[in-house]
Amino acid sequence: MKIVELCDKSYKDVLNNLLKRDIEDFYEIDKNIIAILRNVKDFKDKALYDYTFKFDGVKIDNIKVTEDEVKEALDTVDNQFLDILKKAKYNIERFHKRQIEKSWIEHEKKGIILGQLIRPLDRVGIYVPGGTASYPSSVLMNSIPAMIAGVKSIAMVTPPDKRGKVNPNILAAAYIAGIDEIYKVGGAQAIGALAYGTETIKQVQKIVGPGNIYVARAKKEVFGIVDIDMIAGPSEICIIADKNSNPRYIAADLLSQAEHDQFAFLVLFTNSIDLAESVKKEVIKQLDKLERKEIAEKSIGNNGYIFIVDSIDKAIEISNEIAPEHLEIMVDNPFGLISRIKNAGAVFLGSFTPEPVGDYFAGPNHTLPTSGTAKFSSPLGVYDFVKKTSLIYYTKESLKEIKDDVIYFSKIEGLTAHGNSIRVRFE
Amino acid sequence: MKIVELCDKSYKDVLNNLLKRDIEDFYEIDKNIIAILRNVKDFKDKALYDYTFKFDGVKIDNIKVTEDEVKEALDTVDNQFLDILKKAKYNIERFHKRQIEKSWIEHEKKGIILGQLIRPLDRVGIYVPGGTASYPSSVLMNSIPAMIAGVKSIAMVTPPDKRGKVNPNILAAAYIAGIDEIYKVGGAQAIGALAYGTETIKQVQKIVGPGNIYVARAKKEVFGIVDIDMIAGPSEICIIADKNSNPRYIAADLLSQAEHDQFAFLVLFTNSIDLAESVKKEVIKQLDKLERKEIAEKSIGNNGYIFIVDSIDKAIEISNEIAPEHLEIMVDNPFGLISRIKNAGAVFLGSFTPEPVGDYFAGPNHTLPTSGTAKFSSPLGVYDFVKKTSLIYYTKESLKEIKDDVIYFSKIEGLTAHGNSIRVRFE
Repeated sequence: MKIVELCDKSYKDVLNNLLKRDIEDFYEIDKNIIAILRNVKDFKDKALYDYTFKFDGVKIDNIKVTEDEVKEALDTVDNQFLDILKKAKYNIERFHKRQIEKSWIEHEKKGIILGQLIRPLDRVGIYVPGGTASYPSSVLMNSIPAMIAGVKSIAMVTPPDKRGKVNPNILAAAYIAGIDEIYKVGGAQAIGALAYGTETIKQVQKIVGPGNIYVARAKKEVFGIVDIDMIAGPSEICIIADKNSNPRYIAADLLSQAEHDQFAFLVLFTNSIDLAESVKKEVIKQLDKLERKEIAEKSIGNNGYIFIVDSIDKAIEISNEIAPEHLEIMVDNPFGLISRIKNAGAVFLGSFTPEPVGDYFAGPNHTLPTSGTAKFSSPLGVYDFVKKTSLIYYTKESLKEIKDDVIYFSKIEGLTAHGNSIRVRFE
Repeated sequence: MKIVELCDKSYKDVLNNLLKRDIEDFYEIDKNIIAILRNVKDFKDKALYDYTFKFDGVKIDNIKVTEDEVKEALDTVDNQFLDILKKAKYNIERFHKRQIEKSWIEHEKKGIILGQLIRPLDRVGIYVPGGTASYPSSVLMNSIPAMIAGVKSIAMVTPPDKRGKVNPNILAAAYIAGIDEIYKVGGAQAIGALAYGTETIKQVQKIVGPGNIYVARAKKEVFGIVDIDMIAGPSEICIIADKNSNPRYIAADLLSQAEHDQFAFLVLFTNSIDLAESVKKEVIKQLDKLERKEIAEKSIGNNGYIFIVDSIDKAIEISNEIAPEHLEIMVDNPFGLISRIKNAGAVFLGSFTPEPVGDYFAGPNHTLPTSGTAKFSSPLGVYDFVKKTSLIYYTKESLKEIKDDVIYFSKIEGLTAHGNSIRVRFE
């Protein structure tokens, strides 16, 4: 954990360096991805079975998960976890229901009617990673907003393990969420199947859910044919704390992101040198007891910073430049600062809202913009699973009143057939 | 104009063929695009001047449009057009103001507070095509929603002509819209400048606006570093009409899209063979009088269809599969069909709402999803220029109540440092 004192001159340099988060060359990966996608498009199911054998090392008879497989999984999952999943589902539903938008239609002057329809997508695909990083919370967070939006058909894809099985916790979460169409296929091939459709997997309109670099690049490649959620980068946490904050809490929260992966991004801003020193000590102390110590140690070494700033104001200003995925604000009266937060995925206020509360339980989505994209994108939400349609109605009289203006405008743009479509109605 | 009778068996084939709208290989183009983007990233302004000389054939002294250039342009534009621009602006503003969303914050049980902030993007770039396709309406449609969202800083880019000038109508529209930061640069190099920033053009957070294939592929390439609106395809119109509809109106409306470019997509669905025949005759008759006859003739030959269907119900069903950019409904009581329209960019209701009314004047945005993407995407709107941030606040008591659940969940996911961030707060 590096402690850096930020004076006004140095901070732009440090920041520019930190913000270089997304510039990488994916040329070789993309070449492979495109080949995989093309094969899936051309050879459909056959390509899926072949790639599953090649990449997951298992020969699968039927990629569709059966009801029996789900039952078997539920038997191995304890009831306590099923209960927790249900409680989490309740909270996630409750929050996301507030995001429902309504269609509207309004009468304007002179018989003109304008409106905006809100309609759910028909069918959505959810990617769920398998292997070591198996996150049942992801199943809930990605499917519940879609269901609340009114999406009728949801397909879940997830890679099988070496025995051809899906992690039972994942299946349990799918069961609680109400997803009954699940396929044992992962990687770029799964993205190809969802984007183009195969004999078994029907094409979807949008693909959401996290994945490794192959999944991320494949999603970017098929974007346009289908919609995608976002290209997720490593986890990020930014904490703003003053001298009254508890260094033990701060250290624990930084480490909770550090254990994700070695490129996780962990930054504390404080105006107290004492706090900085205590947090540093606490990080080292707590690190020793962690199961995933090795990963956490690496991410701290790579991207762990404690910045000492003149004021909390300055901290907010820099945090807005960083646009972190997670922002914890541990100062007296954190609510007083809300109006000045411009860019962040989710904000955790006060000393008793550690970030993991949001990962699993509080209700807001844990799929959040990373790599500075919080400057222009939003948490996954119900709005990601609807689309809008404009409505326009003119009467003959109302059209007559504007006809000369439209005809003139179309002439200026050199599109006289546009003007003609108005003209024929008054000849 | 091909007349096709759709019986139940044939229609899937015809449709599948029509819907193959977006499958193309862009490998060679993309290679060039990536090279251009890299050069802009590395050499900044210098690359912009070099590419402008190479592609636009003009040596420019200063890519920033001066106030004098804007004044000069306004002198050449007639007052009637300025007035029309102002009226269009008023209507566009009026419609888009209804899309403003509000932040919310709610108290849950036991001191828990959850919320969702809505914040505008800081800075946006608008691409405006130059040359033969010069559309001042695009300037209004792309900038007004951003301004209503609260975007403070808007940069417009547009390619110069051979004399190094920008089309005066474009500059007039920018003036009316209130855009005062305009650069004479187009193509992939303009997209690179907006995405990475140069000495002169500050980086933006989102790029919107139509362009040729180079612009479209460059936008796709930089997606992720910045946000983009969409990858626009050729114009599309789908008309649903019954026997009482006026064939002259229908023909004129089909032709208004046909003149856009040779790949425009024009489809009429009707349950009346008589109407089909009359529309075909009218198309041929009106075509002869068009200034852009050559282009319209090509698009009719490429993608002009009249489909005869059993019922208007069937027409709606197929239209939902097509998900057209523009859908005109010319039947008795068009409002009765609204609830069954699932996928369309904008719907034009009745016989006196020809599509060009929406292009220029009515208020809803003319930037609409094409190539079937209306299945999952929306007209450009205020919602494209804001992003959301979740807020979470727990008290010590409320955290205590859920702590065991969160700790258990994190254990299931193998992320024990997540659990630890809760645990430290109660030790």
